[in-house]
Amino acid sequence: MIAEIVSVGTELLLGQIIDTHAPNMARILAECGIGCYRRTTVGDNPDRLLEALREALERSDMVITIGGLGPTVDDLTRDMIAVALGDQLHRNTDYEKVLRRFFSSRSIGWTDSIARQADLPSSGRFIDNPNGTAPGLLCEKNGKVVIAMPGPKGEFDPMANGPVRTYLETLLGHAVIHSRVLRVCAMGESQVEDMIRPLMDAEHPTVAPYAQTGEVHLRLTAKAPTVAEADTLLDPVEAEIRQILGRHVFGIDDTTLEMATIQLLAERGETIAVAESMTGGELLGRLTQSPGASKVVKGGWVVYTVEAKENWLGISVEHGPVSSETAVNMAVAAREKSGSTWGIGITGNAGPTADVDGKPVGLTYIAVAGPDRVFVEEGRYRGQREDIRKRASQTALNMLRFEIVK
Amino acid sequence: MIAEIVSVGTELLLGQIIDTHAPNMARILAECGIGCYRRTTVGDNPDRLLEALREALERSDMVITIGGLGPTVDDLTRDMIAVALGDQLHRNTDYEKVLRRFFSSRSIGWTDSIARQADLPSSGRFIDNPNGTAPGLLCEKNGKVVIAMPGPKGEFDPMANGPVRTYLETLLGHAVIHSRVLRVCAMGESQVEDMIRPLMDAEHPTVAPYAQTGEVHLRLTAKAPTVAEADTLLDPVEAEIRQILGRHVFGIDDTTLEMATIQLLAERGETIAVAESMTGGELLGRLTQSPGASKVVKGGWVVYTVEAKENWLGISVEHGPVSSETAVNMAVAAREKSGSTWGIGITGNAGPTADVDGKPVGLTYIAVAGPDRVFVEEGRYRGQREDIRKRASQTALNMLRFEIVK
Repeated sequence: MIAEIVSVGTELLLGQIIDTHAPNMARILAECGIGCYRRTTVGDNPDRLLEALREALERSDMVITIGGLGPTVDDLTRDMIAVALGDQLHRNTDYEKVLRRFFSSRSIGWTDSIARQADLPSSGRFIDNPNGTAPGLLCEKNGKVVIAMPGPKGEFDPMANGPVRTYLETLLGHAVIHSRVLRVCAMGESQVEDMIRPLMDAEHPTVAPYAQTGEVHLRLTAKAPTVAEADTLLDPVEAEIRQILGRHVFGIDDTTLEMATIQLLAERGETIAVAESMTGGELLGRLTQSPGASKVVKGGWVVYTVEAKENWLGISVEHGPVSSETAVNMAVAAREKSGSTWGIGITGNAGPTADVDGKPVGLTYIAVAGPDRVFVEEGRYRGQREDIRKRASQTALNMLRFEIVK
Repeated sequence: MIAEIVSVGTELLLGQIIDTHAPNMARILAECGIGCYRRTTVGDNPDRLLEALREALERSDMVITIGGLGPTVDDLTRDMIAVALGDQLHRNTDYEKVLRRFFSSRSIGWTDSIARQADLPSSGRFIDNPNGTAPGLLCEKNGKVVIAMPGPKGEFDPMANGPVRTYLETLLGHAVIHSRVLRVCAMGESQVEDMIRPLMDAEHPTVAPYAQTGEVHLRLTAKAPTVAEADTLLDPVEAEIRQILGRHVFGIDDTTLEMATIQLLAERGETIAVAESMTGGELLGRLTQSPGASKVVKGGWVVYTVEAKENWLGISVEHGPVSSETAVNMAVAAREKSGSTWGIGITGNAGPTADVDGKPVGLTYIAVAGPDRVFVEEGRYRGQREDIRKRASQTALNMLRFEIVK
């Protein structure tokens, strides 16, 4: 069974609001084992809405619309669904009474357009909406299904996750599509692809890579009668990827690199302090954003000037602020002054222009000082200031992790 | 001229990520006076992508694709645009050389698939992408225009707002819809609305408020034959709002509160240092993210433990880490130890649970130490850890700004 989602609303189409309902609906479809190959957004225009509905009905078994069910003249979804299905619209007098009672109990003036929410296409039934006045619609005709849901979040979410999800699950007999994301650091997307090609070519479970700033995500997806059975299919694939990529796999799903690092240090009872120049607090901010940070992160120094580097950390900057020597001095000082297990030092030029010593934008030195040794890496990052800082702090975390997980 | 947007990516289609690029692109189209009647999302499937492109080309004068330009086998947009336009793909050897140099300079292994990013449809030209390896595409054929942009945010945003916007503006040459955003701090949305109601009721130019975390944005929009003429219409509206809201207006368009603060300090030749506990580097990160920060920000201390507060800053924490006294001590120490004009101290509990002294989540003390006085504010912020940290750093910047701009 194949479904399509049609989002309706001029404010959506023009980008004045971000559509989060359609992605939520797509996830529900996937979890119910229903394929979704297309999503469409149209405005509050009758002809173009009708065209989109007709095309979707031709291509797919099920069309799910979001929005345009309210009482105003802009709300056209109900009417256009009836036209697309060749249905008549009938006023449901029982529901009209419910609406009249509701409006009179709240002392809101009645207008005739309100009653349009009681209209029902001949092949349809209402989906109860306890959170608003516009009910949803469920139409079944000629082997096609149309589901219409209201746009306000407080109405859409409970309807999609409640009666609509239940209907979809019943329809299918309980196949689920279940995913897991493995997060990979210190490798490019094409490098990862080359190493796991045979797994990517497999038809089931599927493995797909997505490049993110400074990391690669591998999405593993399986279809099975239950989530537990899907997990059983995914486990050996995950194990094989971990075998191939080793310590480059740092986490699953929402585990960020900073969270993985904090967790690793917490397990070992170790602590960390950071001296940052170029990244200006970005790495400390990322580390302290992670739950559990207060047991692991002692804190750090943002030493943006030469004077701050020299006076606060008591180090020499004789090789210049952007140099491997200064990065090493910063890491060692951070470790020693804080009494932490680990110290990190980051210095470089994040742009927008070459710095006073003529060091190019993106040139970075990152040093890690630990119980056994101090080491430093030179990096050259491209992109905007924000990307350069993100990549530099990502590399620093990678270096520390790899020093621990050999 | 009518345009359509086609977003490409299985992870988008399945709702694993939210599409913010398409709404941004729709707003740019509107601002350039180009109609957009439909947006479509398809996955990384060649047949269905091709079908969507062909349909869009039939309906519209311009098709804008987002995503699917990278080097992997999943990246099909370039190829399918060529098919849809009846074009051949040619490898651009100059750009292939650029790619090879880039990968070799970063010591990343070369794979043949990387070179696909140098492929160009015969009716197309490249759109420069200084922030990534996949250039954009601009194809003009048989009165139709196809623009393809890469999906990563750091690449899409500058391309859409830079060369693509410029191209769209040139293309049209008639009416433009031009906007300006005034950014307002230390006031709630309804408070702002109440004060500028008459301006909001005006039909042209329009004024619309949008609530953001810790600030309110007022979007002023005018339609005119040129951007310059639209600006002439917006100027008196901006002046009136500034008259009403005074120093609460801190910036225009992309000027963040930290940028406004850095600029204010730079104009006065003043400097700043920060001692952060709860916000863990967030405020320093925001300040140093701003261009020009290196002349203003001396740096700071992230003192996450009591021991770090006492030893690195040399202050007393006898009233407990989350107290107005400790915030004041931190601000004074930051100012004195750095020799800066201004010192800021932030301490509090960002959650997720009440801290050791039983201080509730969200309780925050922020102190500002300046040439004339030290003052402190107690705040109670709601929301997740991230929101609390954002609101606290926002308040700290507001406090400093209002101390200077009386």
